This record gives sequence, C-alpha cells and structure tokens, in this order.
Amino acid sequence: MVSPHVQDELRIFFTSLALGACMRETLAEWRPVVDEAIADLVPREIDTEYLESFFGEPTYAYDPDGLQRALSDPLWDLLDRGGKRWRAVLFLVFVEGFGEDPMAYLPYACIPEILHNGTIIVDDVEDGATKRRGEPALHHIYGRDVALNAGNALYFLPLKILTEDPGNLPAEQRLAAYEMLMDELNRTHLGQGMDICWHNEREVRITPAEYLEMCACKTGCLGRIVARLAAIITDQPERVERAAATYAELTAVAFQIGDDILDVENSLGRAGEFGKEFGNDVREGKKTLLVIHAIEESPPETATRLQEILEAETNTDDELAEALSIIEDAGSIEYAREHALELAADARAAVDELALDAETTDRLYTFTEFVVDRDV
Amino acid sequence: MVSPHVQDELRIFFTSLALGACMRETLAEWRPVVDEAIADLVPREIDTEYLESFFGEPTYAYDPDGLQRALSDPLWDLLDRGGKRWRAVLFLVFVEGFGEDPMAYLPYACIPEILHNGTIIVDDVEDGATKRRGEPALHHIYGRDVALNAGNALYFLPLKILTEDPGNLPAEQRLAAYEMLMDELNRTHLGQGMDICWHNEREVRITPAEYLEMCACKTGCLGRIVARLAAIITDQPERVERAAATYAELTAVAFQIGDDILDVENSLGRAGEFGKEFGNDVREGKKTLLVIHAIEESPPETATRLQEILEAETNTDDELAEALSIIEDAGSIEYAREHALELAADARAAVDELALDAETTDRLYTFTEFVVDRDV
Repeated sequence: MVSPHVQDELRIFFTSLALGACMRETLAEWRPVVDEAIADLVPREIDTEYLESFFGEPTYAYDPDGLQRALSDPLWDLLDRGGKRWRAVLFLVFVEGFGEDPMAYLPYACIPEILHNGTIIVDDVEDGATKRRGEPALHHIYGRDVALNAGNALYFLPLKILTEDPGNLPAEQRLAAYEMLMDELNRTHLGQGMDICWHNEREVRITPAEYLEMCACKTGCLGRIVARLAAIITDQPERVERAAATYAELTAVAFQIGDDILDVENSLGRAGEFGKEFGNDVREGKKTLLVIHAIEESPPETATRLQEILEAETNTDDELAEALSIIEDAGSIEYAREHALELAADARAAVDELALDAETTDRLYTFTEFVVDRDV
Repeated sequence: MVSPHVQDELRIFFTSLALGACMRETLAEWRPVVDEAIADLVPREIDTEYLESFFGEPTYAYDPDGLQRALSDPLWDLLDRGGKRWRAVLFLVFVEGFGEDPMAYLPYACIPEILHNGTIIVDDVEDGATKRRGEPALHHIYGRDVALNAGNALYFLPLKILTEDPGNLPAEQRLAAYEMLMDELNRTHLGQGMDICWHNEREVRITPAEYLEMCACKTGCLGRIVARLAAIITDQPERVERAAATYAELTAVAFQIGDDILDVENSLGRAGEFGKEFGNDVREGKKTLLVIHAIEESPPETATRLQEILEAETNTDDELAEALSIIEDAGSIEYAREHALELAADARAAVDELALDAETTDRLYTFTEFVVDRDV
C-alpha cells in the first residue's frame, strides 16, 4: 500500500525530526505522505467502485456525482489549503516509539487527522466563521447544509478504518479502540459545549480549573486519541496508554494557552496599525485563562471595566487596547506563561514515565517545545 | 433499574400491540418508559456526580451549569415536544421476538432513539428549518452553536452505552455492535449528502434507483440500526440480522415514499384554501419519486414545465397547483403507491424469513402497515 518512495520520505522525516530540524518545514515535507493515505480513504475522485468497496453494496444505486460534491470536494478543498497534519505524525512517532513499524499502521494515522478536519468544518459553522486558512470558510463555498454534512460524515468515516482493519488487529484491540474513541469523542463535545456556553454568557463566572478542563476536553481529547490509538493498536499495557494520553493532553492544553498568550502579546501596542486585526479574543469576548486571571487579580473597578469591554457587542480600538492593558497590568501574561511551562514540564514527566528510547523521547520533548514556544 | 410499575406498562403495551390496537395511542402511552431510560443517560438536571460517572473523572473540573445548557436543556426540550419513540419500541419488539426479555435491554433501546433526535437537530440547522414539532427549531432558541453541538454530542453519547455494557455482553458482541453502527452511520451521511446535493441542483437528473438509495441510506439506516442492534445483542445468526435489517430498511423506505405521496394527495385541490400550506415538496423543489416519475413519463413540454416550476425560487399558488396536476396526470401517485405497497410486501416477506412467533410476526406486519397506510 505504501510505495518505497513514500517509505524513504518517512524515514527522512523521522531522521530529521530526531535531529531537531525545524519542525515546521519538516511537517510540511511530510504532508504528502499523510495525504496519500487519506486519499486511500476518501479519493479526490469518487466513483461507484470506491463507494461499493468502502461503504458496502448499495441496495439500489449510489450517485457518485452527488457524493463527489457532498464529501470529497469539501474535504480536499480544506486539506489542500494547508494544515500541518501533526496529529498523524505524532501518531506515527508513538507507534515507532512503541517498537512497531509505522508504515504498517499508516491508515490509522488518518483517524485523528480526519476527525480533526471534521471538527474544523463543524466549528466554523457553529462560530459563523467567515475565513479558514485564508480562504472563505467551507460553508460559504458549499452551503451550510453540504459543509455540515461533510463535517459530520468525517466523524464516522475514519472510524470505519478499524472495521476495515488494515493492521489485522485482534478483536479485543479493535473493541478497545472503539471504546476509547467513544470516550474521547464524548468528552470533546463536552469541551465544545462548555466553550460555547461561556461564549454566550455575558459574565465571566468560570474558574481556571473549569477553563483548563474545557481545553483538556475540546483540544486535549483529540490529542489523547492520537496517543491512545497508537498504544492500543500496538497493544501496550494500560499504564503506557495512560501516560501517553497524559502527555498528549498536557501538550494540547499548553498549546491552547500558548494560543491565548500569543493573541494578547501580538496585539499589545498594535492599536491603530493600519489593516492589522488585533485583540481578537477580547473582541469575541473569549474567556481565556488570561482574562479569568485578570478579573480575579485586578482591583474591583478595573475588573468591572474589563468585564464591560468583553460583554460589549462591539468595541472601539481604544477599548480593545484598554482591555489588553488591564490584562498585561494584572500580570496575566506571566501567569499564563508559567502555567503553560508547568504543563509542558508535566508533559515531559509523562514522557519520562513512558521510558521509551532516547530518540522517541527527544522527538516528544521537541514536539511539546514546538507547540508551546511557537511565535505564530 | 426498571420499576415494577414500568414493567407493567411495558407488558400492557406489548399486549395491546399484539391485539392490533391503535398504534398511535399505544406508542403515546409507552413514551414515558423510553423517556425514563433516556433520563438515565442524560438527566434533566445535570450535576457533577452524573458527569463524573458517565463521562469519567475530569482532569480539572467540569462545569455542570454550562453542560446543563449545552446538552440536557436542548435534548429534553426536543423530547418533550413529542415524537413517538417508535425506534425504541421496535427495538424492544425485536428483542422479545428473538426470545429475550426486553426489560434487560431497555438502555440499548435509547441508542437509535437518541441518534434519531441528534439527526433532527442537525438536519434542522442544515435545512435552515424554522419550526420543529410546532415550536421554533432548536437553533432558533439555543443558538446555532449550542444546538449543533448538542446534536453532534447525541451522535456519540448513546454509543457509550455499549461501553457501559448494561447487558453484560461478551466482547465480540460489543465489537459487532460498534462495527455495525459505524457501517450504518456512514451510510446515513451518504444518504443525507445525496439528498442535500440534489436539493441544491436545479435539474432533476437522478433515477428512481438513486432516489430509493437515498431513502435507504438516509431513513433506512437508522431503521437498520434498530433491527441489527437487537439481533447483535441477542446473538442471532447473521441471516437473522440480515433479514431483520432488510425488513426495517424496506419499511423505512416505504414510509418515506408514503410521506411523498401524502404531500401531493393532501395538496391536490387545496389551492386558495385560506391559511393552508400546500404543495410543500414542490415549493422546496424536492426530487421525490413522484417527481422523478412524472418527469420521465410526461410529454416533453409538460416535463419541462414541471422542471421549471421546481427550479423557480418562488412559486405562485397557481404554479404549485399546475405542478401537482402534472404529477397527478402522469399517474405518478399510483406509481409511487404501488411501489410503496411492493416494498411493504417485501418487508413482510423478510419478516416471514425470520420465522418468529406469530405474535411478533403480527406486530411487525402491523408496524409496516401503520407507517405505509397512515393518513397524516
């Protein structure tokens, strides 16, 4: 299934990753390999033969033209816009770390990757997003109905890989994988549910622990799927699966906090710069860890002012700048950064607990550093 | 888990079903039993204890208030509006027909029922529906983001029942159930994808076979889940699972065609009746089996005229009446009715193949008649 050429690329990738080469470029080089595997699952051109082999014989007759437009066109439009495919890559790093040949499990690497792209499409509909990766959000191109159905189809399509069973897994491993996926996908929706509800509330009433839980569920669970799937299909003991999941969850939460910090840091001092968006999180009224901290730590009238700006339907640039200053003055950037670094340290500790070979350990360290220290 | 009182109600229900009592009222009586089982899965009042026991320990802390509004409120709002819960009831009929005590498997009856309610919420967002069961569609009350996330959460929440394993099923049965669900839920999204794409196309280019496939996927697969789940958890041989699935699929397709016929029949002669909506399917440009047949069978200029009316953004009442007459004159109502009756006969043949006890056979016959012969 995987050509020797692709195998070479994969080897080069792993070598360069171990050497700590620039992660961003390396991931970019590796994208075509993952995309080739995804194209085995959802081809760019859908025909009856594919539909019958992947989804089973129809009772009457499929309409491949309709399904081209309902499924393949939106997915490949999104994939071709970019994305680093890091969920697939991290999965393969784990598989190799667990002593198995990643080539043998390449199709499984598509599971978290396709799920992730499904959530992107659905999230954009939920948020009423206008743009995605620099182009119009999918529902603006294909219509809300087609985009949403495609996004939801991508929640179930990759799970069929376990039934297809390219790795010849014993029944108990396939069952464990399904149970794990149901566990994590349920919690993903809890995380998204909390985030959305808070977004729709005016008041900031949540605690740092609830915010971190939202991140752990919404962003962390997809990371946990990556780690646990690799552990399950390579038949690791439970404590390994658990430590790998903890690593992935902590890294994902650190990533989310890093995102929140970047939004504030990149915005400070930018007010009035022509054509630059700034203070997006404040504009959207997002209850980030920084905002929760700033409201807890500021003098009452300052906290009330920040709350007012967050609650307002629209804000002037001056108001955004004021909110950003309140956050900065409360020491919330340092607080959040310390928290992210602690999470990263805990993630490294979880890797140490795994006691994998030095190369894999180094890759996993590098990966956490990459997501926490990135500047864009 | 199930109170003696509820067990009595269930017995009464089954008896009255066997006696061919009015299905509609019987289903209504039985609704509280299913709703009690659903409330065990998603309580009306969400607290930390429920969240921790159903979704697992949080890493930090859940926000039960947020999840009340994100999950439980929208679901129970929808359930309390009505719905016949026939998917749950049909599941229990099959379980008893397969020689097992339906009480022992009541929680599993919630799987197709909750999935169905999830698809309703998502479909309404996709279609931009304004009403659902006489009240505003959920996204008009809770916002598109909350409604959509709740709908999607309901795709995964019931699948966790298999992991909870209230029936103490062996691993191979749980795996078979998961694989079946992935199979059918993938095809559900193919059906919805075809339907949506055709809806967005101006031309009627599809064949009756493609239309029937869309029904078999979109409506039939949820019926197949009902039948196959009952067969799997009671450990039936494959041929039984297949015949039961065929019965449920055929009944669901017959139901869909019955729907299409009713829309035309109830509309004929109603043009100009004050306050009555009529010709809804034509108004929406739906490519039903009747429309496909009428376009195939009418003289070319009449077919073109029907196509024009379907394609138009808006229609006058006279145009709707004209389209309905073209459909009637082409003999499309009789064509569709014959087709629905054939499907119902095939469904009965599938029941005969199952060779179940006379009582269950009669219930399954009655059920098919009920969905095909209904007048509203």
